[in-house]
Amino acid sequence: MVRGLDPQRTIRELAELRSLTGDADGAQRVAFTPTWSKARAWFRDRLVGLPVETHADAAGNVWTTLAGRSDRAVVIGSHIDSVPNGGWLDGCLGLLAGVEVLRRVAAEHAGRPPVTLRVVDWADEEGARFGKSLFGSAACSGNLDLDEARGLVDRRGVRLPDALREVGIDFERVKESRCERATAAAYLELHIEQGPVLLDLGLPLGAVLGTFGVERHAITFRGQAAHSGSTPMNRRRDAFLAAGKMAQEIYAIAANSGGVCTIGSCTTKPGIVTSVVEECRITLDQRHLDAAALERMHAAAREAAERFAAEGHVEVSWERLWRIPPAPFHPDLVEFADAAVRETCGTAHRLPSGPLHDAAEMAMAGVPTVMLFVQSLHGISHNKIEDTRPEHLALAVRALDRLTEKTMHWVATRGAGA
Amino acid sequence: MVRGLDPQRTIRELAELRSLTGDADGAQRVAFTPTWSKARAWFRDRLVGLPVETHADAAGNVWTTLAGRSDRAVVIGSHIDSVPNGGWLDGCLGLLAGVEVLRRVAAEHAGRPPVTLRVVDWADEEGARFGKSLFGSAACSGNLDLDEARGLVDRRGVRLPDALREVGIDFERVKESRCERATAAAYLELHIEQGPVLLDLGLPLGAVLGTFGVERHAITFRGQAAHSGSTPMNRRRDAFLAAGKMAQEIYAIAANSGGVCTIGSCTTKPGIVTSVVEECRITLDQRHLDAAALERMHAAAREAAERFAAEGHVEVSWERLWRIPPAPFHPDLVEFADAAVRETCGTAHRLPSGPLHDAAEMAMAGVPTVMLFVQSLHGISHNKIEDTRPEHLALAVRALDRLTEKTMHWVATRGAGA
Repeated sequence: MVRGLDPQRTIRELAELRSLTGDADGAQRVAFTPTWSKARAWFRDRLVGLPVETHADAAGNVWTTLAGRSDRAVVIGSHIDSVPNGGWLDGCLGLLAGVEVLRRVAAEHAGRPPVTLRVVDWADEEGARFGKSLFGSAACSGNLDLDEARGLVDRRGVRLPDALREVGIDFERVKESRCERATAAAYLELHIEQGPVLLDLGLPLGAVLGTFGVERHAITFRGQAAHSGSTPMNRRRDAFLAAGKMAQEIYAIAANSGGVCTIGSCTTKPGIVTSVVEECRITLDQRHLDAAALERMHAAAREAAERFAAEGHVEVSWERLWRIPPAPFHPDLVEFADAAVRETCGTAHRLPSGPLHDAAEMAMAGVPTVMLFVQSLHGISHNKIEDTRPEHLALAVRALDRLTEKTMHWVATRGAGA
Repeated sequence: MVRGLDPQRTIRELAELRSLTGDADGAQRVAFTPTWSKARAWFRDRLVGLPVETHADAAGNVWTTLAGRSDRAVVIGSHIDSVPNGGWLDGCLGLLAGVEVLRRVAAEHAGRPPVTLRVVDWADEEGARFGKSLFGSAACSGNLDLDEARGLVDRRGVRLPDALREVGIDFERVKESRCERATAAAYLELHIEQGPVLLDLGLPLGAVLGTFGVERHAITFRGQAAHSGSTPMNRRRDAFLAAGKMAQEIYAIAANSGGVCTIGSCTTKPGIVTSVVEECRITLDQRHLDAAALERMHAAAREAAERFAAEGHVEVSWERLWRIPPAPFHPDLVEFADAAVRETCGTAHRLPSGPLHDAAEMAMAGVPTVMLFVQSLHGISHNKIEDTRPEHLALAVRALDRLTEKTMHWVATRGAGA
């Protein structure tokens, strides 16, 4: 057993946080709300007595620093914010496990490890209120599009800059968060998988290869409204038919590519029982770890849409909603993560991450990065039934600790110029 | 040329009615509104000087009677109400053509034809305000479901019985309209086709074989919401995929059956770009002139839905929204209609009616019934661009007149017991 590490404490703290900030519908720590501030205050109380310095940066990210003999830092990050009616582990597991590792390192090195160790609680990873995820880490990475973010409003019409002001953040200065990144020599993140891969394999833990790139589009098919009784089948220009054919093709494209594709919504106009559909809009989300493969998936979907549109004598147009390139993790750190998993539970497995994480922002900013996944029961997240076995949670804390140890050694021996 | 018939007068009257009750968006004669009452008052003015009696029945249908030597009546029917932003011909063409025929018959027989001739303006054929079409004719046929109709409300929350009271109709007595049907020996209706069949054939007129039966259902597929990034394709239970497969199958079923099928709307839950669709609800409208063929289409759709649900590991449930059996028209009258069309424009064509008409209620009530269709430009109706060539409108009035003559003769010679 690693000296001083107490994974059971992490589990107790997770349960305590759930009681404090959840209700019968699940976790309610939506960023920039009073419940979120309450969770962060509780989190700061957990740090009392540790030889650390804690401050919030310009974007509202909270950094806790255990200064080492070198200021080159291993950063362990995650987020305490949740979606509305969320699960008890998404985000806060990684944060509290990071603190537990920090406690162990502080104790082992008498408060002065060879390199600096930092734990960061990113602000608004989920984007639940303003529809823009990875806010804090994107400010820190420099990827945040200020012009786009400035215009975001929540459901009640509150603008993001105004919501930030209420929690003491000046929107126009959030990118000053970048200075925190200057000393970051490696970034580590433990997260629940939020999918069924480890569950299906019967494995507690996995080393994450990187986060999928995403191509997200709205596709609109336009045909002709026509009376459902009086229009012969061969005279129809049915927008829904073309969209329906897309669904099948999307599955075939994904099966042939190793990525994932999803048609998440479909709306029809006029959308009445007595009319052929004139306009059908679907959203398409395509993801892959390999940039070239993602581009091929996207091109295949475009080709299919054109083909079905031509077959059905309808028109089709595409609107890009969002894209992000794949963020492959650092090969050395992936090896360390793989070794940490194997040493902790005997069997390692490497898998990509479908969901985005703050780690993607750090990887894209050039910080050597890796993640650990722990099995999700039911493969379900963003829901109050989200859960992970207690023994797996304990293994996850141990694996993060081993990964941190390996990474600190790597940073210490690599030298400042590497 | 038939003595005294003036089809150009019908065209002038249609244009006058359009000016009086339409606007830049089209016809606005929605039943039970002030504009509808204005149209009806204008209609009554058209009858001044004719040897007729006019009254509204218990359901608000307006009957105009040219008494004959026999009280056995040929009834020409249609409706002056329109959908909002409707066309200038839907409904009122048949009504005003009927009046023109009545004028010709009155003049030819010095106000006393061998059998009675009646023109009926049915109340609320379109059902635009309360979502229930064929109100007046269903009251007269006896098919109106009073319990269902009693609960109908419009968009502003007004109940149908209250709206009726405002125009002087006692909802609880509407079925007394049935007494008007006692003397009806035949029912004739001229209507625009509202579809592209005659347009495609280059024919002005057609004899209608009957109205399609309709099976109308909502079909709900239920799978499992899952993260679009973290859920491998082989672990998904995608409700939209099953619905999309249905669209293609629906077309194949219709192609093999000679009927028509339409998926008119599709809604998805949670309906967000980052989730596999958990619930997908589509509406299905199937129509056929043959009851057995309609039942086969319905059974084939059920089978397909079950198959796609099983393939995709989703559940499927059906909810019947509405059904009406096919209403085949009277063979003798179909022959007369066919002959009237051939005599009027040289070429006859028989076709079913996809849309419902008041004629279906009369046919189902046992009144020998037939309809004439006149070509619709663009095959479009329920829209301000709805139109028919003036020369075709004139031919339509002439054909209705010939059909009426043949039918009056048939009624006169058939005897009361036939």
